Amino acid sequence: MIKSYPIKELLSNVPILHEVVVNGWVKTFRSNRFIALNDGSTINNIQCVVDFEQFDEELLKQIATGAALKISGTLVESQGKGQNVEIQVKDIFVHGSADPETYPIQPKKHSLEFLREKAHLRVRTNTFAAVMRVRSALSFAVHQYFRDNGFYYVHTPIITGSDAEGAGEMFRVSTLDPKNPPVTEEGNVDYKEDFFGKETNLTVSGQLEAETYAMGLGKVYTFGPTFRAENSNTSRHLAEFWMIEPEVAFNDLDANMDLAEDFIKNVINYILDNCKEDLEFLEKRLLDEEKSKPQIERSEMALLEKLRFVSENNFKRVSYTEAIDILRNCKPNKKKKFKYSIDEWGADLQSEHERFLVEKHFKCPVILFDYPAKIKAFYMRLNEDGNTVRAMDILFPGIGEIVGGSQREERLDVLKEKIETLGIDEKELWWYLDLRKFGTAVHSGFGLGFERLVLFATGMGNIRDVIPFPRTPQNAEF
Amino acid sequence: MIKSYPIKELLSNVPILHEVVVNGWVKTFRSNRFIALNDGSTINNIQCVVDFEQFDEELLKQIATGAALKISGTLVESQGKGQNVEIQVKDIFVHGSADPETYPIQPKKHSLEFLREKAHLRVRTNTFAAVMRVRSALSFAVHQYFRDNGFYYVHTPIITGSDAEGAGEMFRVSTLDPKNPPVTEEGNVDYKEDFFGKETNLTVSGQLEAETYAMGLGKVYTFGPTFRAENSNTSRHLAEFWMIEPEVAFNDLDANMDLAEDFIKNVINYILDNCKEDLEFLEKRLLDEEKSKPQIERSEMALLEKLRFVSENNFKRVSYTEAIDILRNCKPNKKKKFKYSIDEWGADLQSEHERFLVEKHFKCPVILFDYPAKIKAFYMRLNEDGNTVRAMDILFPGIGEIVGGSQREERLDVLKEKIETLGIDEKELWWYLDLRKFGTAVHSGFGLGFERLVLFATGMGNIRDVIPFPRTPQNAEF
Repeated sequence: MIKSYPIKELLSNVPILHEVVVNGWVKTFRSNRFIALNDGSTINNIQCVVDFEQFDEELLKQIATGAALKISGTLVESQGKGQNVEIQVKDIFVHGSADPETYPIQPKKHSLEFLREKAHLRVRTNTFAAVMRVRSALSFAVHQYFRDNGFYYVHTPIITGSDAEGAGEMFRVSTLDPKNPPVTEEGNVDYKEDFFGKETNLTVSGQLEAETYAMGLGKVYTFGPTFRAENSNTSRHLAEFWMIEPEVAFNDLDANMDLAEDFIKNVINYILDNCKEDLEFLEKRLLDEEKSKPQIERSEMALLEKLRFVSENNFKRVSYTEAIDILRNCKPNKKKKFKYSIDEWGADLQSEHERFLVEKHFKCPVILFDYPAKIKAFYMRLNEDGNTVRAMDILFPGIGEIVGGSQREERLDVLKEKIETLGIDEKELWWYLDLRKFGTAVHSGFGLGFERLVLFATGMGNIRDVIPFPRTPQNAEF
Repeated sequence: MIKSYPIKELLSNVPILHEVVVNGWVKTFRSNRFIALNDGSTINNIQCVVDFEQFDEELLKQIATGAALKISGTLVESQGKGQNVEIQVKDIFVHGSADPETYPIQPKKHSLEFLREKAHLRVRTNTFAAVMRVRSALSFAVHQYFRDNGFYYVHTPIITGSDAEGAGEMFRVSTLDPKNPPVTEEGNVDYKEDFFGKETNLTVSGQLEAETYAMGLGKVYTFGPTFRAENSNTSRHLAEFWMIEPEVAFNDLDANMDLAEDFIKNVINYILDNCKEDLEFLEKRLLDEEKSKPQIERSEMALLEKLRFVSENNFKRVSYTEAIDILRNCKPNKKKKFKYSIDEWGADLQSEHERFLVEKHFKCPVILFDYPAKIKAFYMRLNEDGNTVRAMDILFPGIGEIVGGSQREERLDVLKEKIETLGIDEKELWWYLDLRKFGTAVHSGFGLGFERLVLFATGMGNIRDVIPFPRTPQNAEF
């Protein structure tokens, strides 16, 4: 039996004059002679040259864009431009055809909006195949980075009975009869009757559970789905997205910033080394797309240049207080160009402010740290000043916040006071407080929204286009 | 500043006479002199030798099991047995103590049931730390295997609007008011008002979505959480578990079986190569545990021997029909020892039958294939006999079913007929049917329950003990 090869291997690892078998889908079929075949292993097609006089006309008719074929033939040096090798076809088996009248993915430009409606087929386009291969490579880079640096992967729970995470609105998970749920004497839904014997939701973050593991295994990370039931229809929000959350015992905020920066550079370098062809394709796609935009809206750097810039330059570290000074005195603020003007210390930064700092002022990734305690989560470590906490956000050009992290409050008394002030029931967090009772220590971590990283790495403009089947308000098709 | 080292590095990579700093938790403190310190990086502790006359008594009192310490000192060759190096302590900083009166994880034997109630602290025991490090290594091995073999990782959706997967009972996901949900004119819950504008559930499998990606990228896999709302309180079932689902275009069932077997052997070899000390510890734990059992209930092989046996021997491939013959004529069946006796072809195999085949008859992992169509899912490819489908299950000793897979029905007409017979609404599966309309081809895949693999690899007896925070009926604490 003749071995069947992935096209990626045939194109790069050239056993010329070998008999080969290859399976794939037709990208185009020109002049009844040249089949461009792709199997998803690479952005590049292999050219299969057909002597049409040797094949039945009925068979040739089935070779349309999208058809699945098995081709046998001889791998030879290519006569044409654009490829080193091609296949002289001896035999063709049609696994399945694709009627040009009804198959939606034709060899022409489709809008990204159109393709979102065809999320089950869009990975058959060059753009989505490239995006999803880069996404896969980034995922692997994440696991490899942490493995190489002594971290352990922790699967924190998706269904959570804890409602004190406070990171956003939650989805309820239940098996109760939705029409006639059991009710208590007080007339409330009786969750004691539910599957888990209590009210449960989809997790908004694995951080609190990851902390319990960091305090035993030292260095851990999560990489799993997280959920926000927020009615945000923007190009940067999903109701279901994947998050990476490392948590490290004995790391302070400086070590946490070092980790985040090193991590991001490392995974970017991984795709620069391993996804060259897909990134070049996506760079060209972005250039084409931006041609129709006015000069001022176009990216300053091409995709690969931007990725190299991030991997080679230090992120700028700026305290919240410094940032407020810059923003208060900047032109857009003085000229009232911001929707939310920055008047005083304590203001929460909006996307417009973050973008100004990153894209106009510093022109590089920025790490903001030491935020006002009032605008940050309860578990962040209070500084000696009593007003700020050891929080940090990493802001990226074109993306905004890509990382949010902090040193965690490890002092039992301070944490309890904070919880009480916020009116959170201590009993809800008994296990989280236990970490401060038994062998507590300085520790830190951060969360990185994986889809935002993929957005940045691929140059795509809408977060719905970097995850296979996006979940957004009013949309859970497939 | 003196560099702080992971204990794993100190123990293996010996810079004798260096000044070192190390952070970790006290395992034991003997004779006011010997601190066994562990930081989670390894099962082994580093011995820190204290000259108690040089330290304050109050400080020494805080050094109890579970306390977090930072120790500075000189790394020297050890005088005692059991370790090559030890630290002569110069300075001790107590990050946080642990009151022996209240800290539950004391240096004595705790039952696994007791530790399940302390899931936030149990990773501080040797057993759970070892299990979770092996779990992490297995996860990495999964990603590495697929990367090395040209697969792309696909994040299939967790919240699904598709209810045709049919793999089991589902959890409903909703943001509607649980007490007073909006109702339609017919008096049903009006899911048009829900977050996604339709009824949604937690996924029971990413397979159908993975198929859409295999038909574009060729070789893909998922590795994510899946959910079953089944009221099964057994040692092998979880309501939330992680599943690995590869899906490969152009693979038939034989290639699918080859892939599954190669995959399992590869990830087992990875932990044999990379988790030797943890596996040796777990092997000893299992031997100790089994000492209290009668001879007949003990494992025939020790843990490492069992893992090597699986990685080195071929899995036995047996058709369902052959298996039924064996079962029909076996002693337990004739002597009515089975709860469900096997009388005729077509019977669904129960756990007792699978265990007989694997543990008594073949004494090795078994792949059963070509099952009766009636007892398998709608998407499995019908054989020419019209009665059986190209399904396969892999059965492991002590675990039972660890893999379930099949070649998928790629013929549109056959699939449609099957769907109709089962009364599934075709409209629910429009996108799945599209794969058979456009460029259809032979393809196959399988699902592997990750926790069952971890159970097998660690020798643990209850699936609740191989996932950080188990979700089971009446239990969603943490």
